[in-house]
Formats: sequence, structure tokens, C-alpha cells
Amino acid sequence: MSLERLDFAENLARKAGDLGMEYFRKLDTLTVTQKGHQDLVSEADRNVETLIRDEIGKVYPQDGILGEEHGMEEGTSGFTWVTDPIDGTANFVAGIPQWCVIIACVHQGKVIVGVIHDPVSNETFKAAAGHGAFLNGKPIKASDSKSLSNGSVGVGFNGRTAVTDAVNVVGALVSKGGVFFRNASGGLMLAYAASGRLIGYVESHMNAWDCLAGMLITSEAGGQVMEQDINQSLHHGARVVVGAPGVFSDLKEIAESSFAPFEAA
Amino acid sequence: MSLERLDFAENLARKAGDLGMEYFRKLDTLTVTQKGHQDLVSEADRNVETLIRDEIGKVYPQDGILGEEHGMEEGTSGFTWVTDPIDGTANFVAGIPQWCVIIACVHQGKVIVGVIHDPVSNETFKAAAGHGAFLNGKPIKASDSKSLSNGSVGVGFNGRTAVTDAVNVVGALVSKGGVFFRNASGGLMLAYAASGRLIGYVESHMNAWDCLAGMLITSEAGGQVMEQDINQSLHHGARVVVGAPGVFSDLKEIAESSFAPFEAA
Repeated sequence: MSLERLDFAENLARKAGDLGMEYFRKLDTLTVTQKGHQDLVSEADRNVETLIRDEIGKVYPQDGILGEEHGMEEGTSGFTWVTDPIDGTANFVAGIPQWCVIIACVHQGKVIVGVIHDPVSNETFKAAAGHGAFLNGKPIKASDSKSLSNGSVGVGFNGRTAVTDAVNVVGALVSKGGVFFRNASGGLMLAYAASGRLIGYVESHMNAWDCLAGMLITSEAGGQVMEQDINQSLHHGARVVVGAPGVFSDLKEIAESSFAPFEAA
Repeated sequence: MSLERLDFAENLARKAGDLGMEYFRKLDTLTVTQKGHQDLVSEADRNVETLIRDEIGKVYPQDGILGEEHGMEEGTSGFTWVTDPIDGTANFVAGIPQWCVIIACVHQGKVIVGVIHDPVSNETFKAAAGHGAFLNGKPIKASDSKSLSNGSVGVGFNGRTAVTDAVNVVGALVSKGGVFFRNASGGLMLAYAASGRLIGYVESHMNAWDCLAGMLITSEAGGQVMEQDINQSLHHGARVVVGAPGVFSDLKEIAESSFAPFEAA
């Protein structure tokens, strides 16, 4: 059941990515501050999500859907799709070619499917619970790094939490010999952590549509993931700490000492 | 004279990028920790630089060449080429598709040509002194942002300087309502600052091969660039602060208050 939905989600993410790319190329013809630029970005976000919702509605009409742009549409099947049509919107707006489409599916409090698709680099990261994690069809593995000084850690930063959260993490990381990375797409950074490109990722608060797919892919790739109540996270988001098993406890300690107490946003 | 060298450098950067991509795809077949992986990365770095040196030697045999991998080869023409064959090596090693080829040319203490080529996204940023700045042939302009809270600032971080330098910048930036960005390729981040995708870039110390091209492209795109003695920078590197005219003085202040005094590395 989850493999069927995984195939569906992968194809859908690619289709959504193609539509996103059309807008991304169109934006290229406007300057960032030109009248119409912001409208086009909002249109891209909305229309990519609408495409995703329409396709889900056709194939799984009983499933629920939660998306960044259009909110929660409850279902009756017990399955809920969770999507961020364009993750890394600030990059998308600015023309930075680092953004992705995220689609996850939740069933009975568990994430069963996760797909993160980068249409610029044509990389699709995916996992179904219990079936391993893949990048463009090839198995991926979280890093086997055993030290913060061996690899980089992705750091999330957003306007919803204390501004000191990310600053504290960067400071704690660097003081322990680590290196921080922030390309402004939480989805991509989680995908990089899943595939061993980064040794971990930490963010004090992420929305469900940003983090659920990446958390599943990381854990299916052998990485460690701080446990969350998934149903809670659908409504309130989650604190995210994932990483190579060899550095996970260090990352958790850094997060605990750096982040203000979690408040459901 | 500089336009001829610009054309040459642009073609060369694309050719070098193609060779880099061959290695990048080959690396994809090895895991990061597999025996042979690091050898292949070093081979990529060396051979891409050798390709660049060979082509320069054929067309401009009297010019000098300074490269990250093979050091300085003095010339007699008064022109010195400066190249980083693969900027963002940590990304390249890890499989993160965010790296670039950098080629600059210096004449009589001035950077006259700069090219930054991203072979993954197929984006080529270029400028010749006095002739404007371009991305894939289209004119680019630095951001017209007037506030640190309107846009993101690239932050460089490397092992050559006080670990507190970058941490201080991140802290100062965020405390003033700013957002930091670090995709671990100084070349790409400078190119993004030049094209208005970022509102600025700061790093306490960069080597000449990492920064000269980006500084020229930014200034030709209407950005402000902290002045440097270019001849000095060839041997000792430079402090780099560039940005939108509307935020440049803020960035300079942040750099001054955050960085330990400059030491030629």
C-alpha cells in the first residue's frame, strides 16, 4: 500500500517540479523588485499546490490533504498527504536555484511515504516506511561520520522562532569544531542529511510540510531522527534534529542547549 | 583587450566545468568514505586546473597563472590569471550540487576579467572591467535592497581564520533583522550577491582565486565592494565585504565589529 503511494508521490513530485520550473524560468525574465514578480511567485506556489491536490483527489479521493498554501482538507481513509509545493521560497523568489517540491503521506500517526524532488538538479529523494531510501532510484545511506569535525551540519532559520535559536546552534557547532551549512531550503538540507552529504540537520521549529518527508527519508537511510508525535506535528509543527548515528547525540545536545523551549506555532 | 580575454575565460570556464562534471558524476558511483573517493576528488581538482593552465598557456603564453592547486607561475606580459578550478570542494566531495569554476585575470593591480561558472545549473556569471556584468549573456544588477531585513546575506566560513569570525557575523546580522545564507561555495555566493539574489557577502579571509572574479562581477553589476590592494591579495588573500549599495555600510560595520584583525594568510 505504501509502495503504491510512493510511486504515485514520486511521479507527482516530478510533475509538480516541472510546473515549478516553468515559473522559475519565467521569473528569470523579471527583476526581483519588478511589479508582477511577487504575484508570479505567489501564483507559482498556489498553482503547484493545486496541481498536487487535484492529482491526489483524482487517485485517492478519500485521503486528506494538508498543504502550506491551502491548509487542511480532512479525508475519510485515514491517509493524509502533506505537501510543500515550493520549499525554499526565498531562494525561488531571488532566483537561487536551490528549492524543491515536498510530498509526504501520513497514516495512523506514522509517515509512510516521503518524496523530496529538486527539479533544478533533477534529484529525487524518496522513501517508504520499511523499504529503504533512494536518490534517483539508487539506495542512499546517512553519513557514517563519528565526529562533528568530519562533515557539515545544516541549520534551519525562520521567522517563527527566537532569532537566537539558529545563532546559538551555529556558535555551539563551530565551538565543537563543526561547520554549518544553510542553503535556505530545509527540504533540500534534510535530503542532504539523509544521503550523507550533510552529517545532520537541526531546526528549532519546522512545519509538517517541510519536515515529515525528510525525517522519514533520513531514518530509512539509516540516520537517527529525534522522535515526534506526528499527529501533533500536523497541526503544530515539530522540532527537528536528524543526523548520522555517530553524531546524533552531539547534535541533540547542541539543540537542547541552543533552542528556546518548543512552542507549537 | 579585456573583452577578448573575457570571451576566452568564459569558454574556458565552460570547458573546465564540463570536465568537473565528468568527475562529479563519477563520484556519484562511489560513497564518500569509499577508498578511492578522495583520490578522485584530488584528481578532479588537479586535472581541471591543468586543463585551465594548458589552454591559457596555448593562447596567452606570456601571461602568469595563479591557481589553488599548482601555485604561481610568473609571466612576462603583466597579465596574471587567477583560478579556482573547483570552488566549493567540500560540496563537490559530499555530492552537493553547489560548486563552480572561477577564472579571473589581473592587469596592473586591477581585476580586468572575472568568470564564475556553475556547471550544474548551467549558469555563467561574467564581467570585464568597465563593460558591465552578465549571467548567461543577460545583464545583471546588484540588489536595490535598502535594509538588512530585506534579503539574505552570504557568510563565508573557513579554517584559516578565527572560528568566531563567522559566528559573530551571523549573530550581528540576525540581531539586526537579517538572514544568513551559506551554501559553502564562496564563488557562487559572490555571484549571487552580484546578481541581486543575495544582498551581500562577507568573509573574513578569502584567497585571491576565490574572491577576485566575484568582486569584479559585483562591482560591474552596481554593487559596492570594499577596496583591496589586488597585488597584495594575490599573495595574501583579502577580506571580502560586498553588497547592495543600500546595505553596504551596514555590512561593513558588521564585518568590522565581528572579524578579528586581518592577518595575511
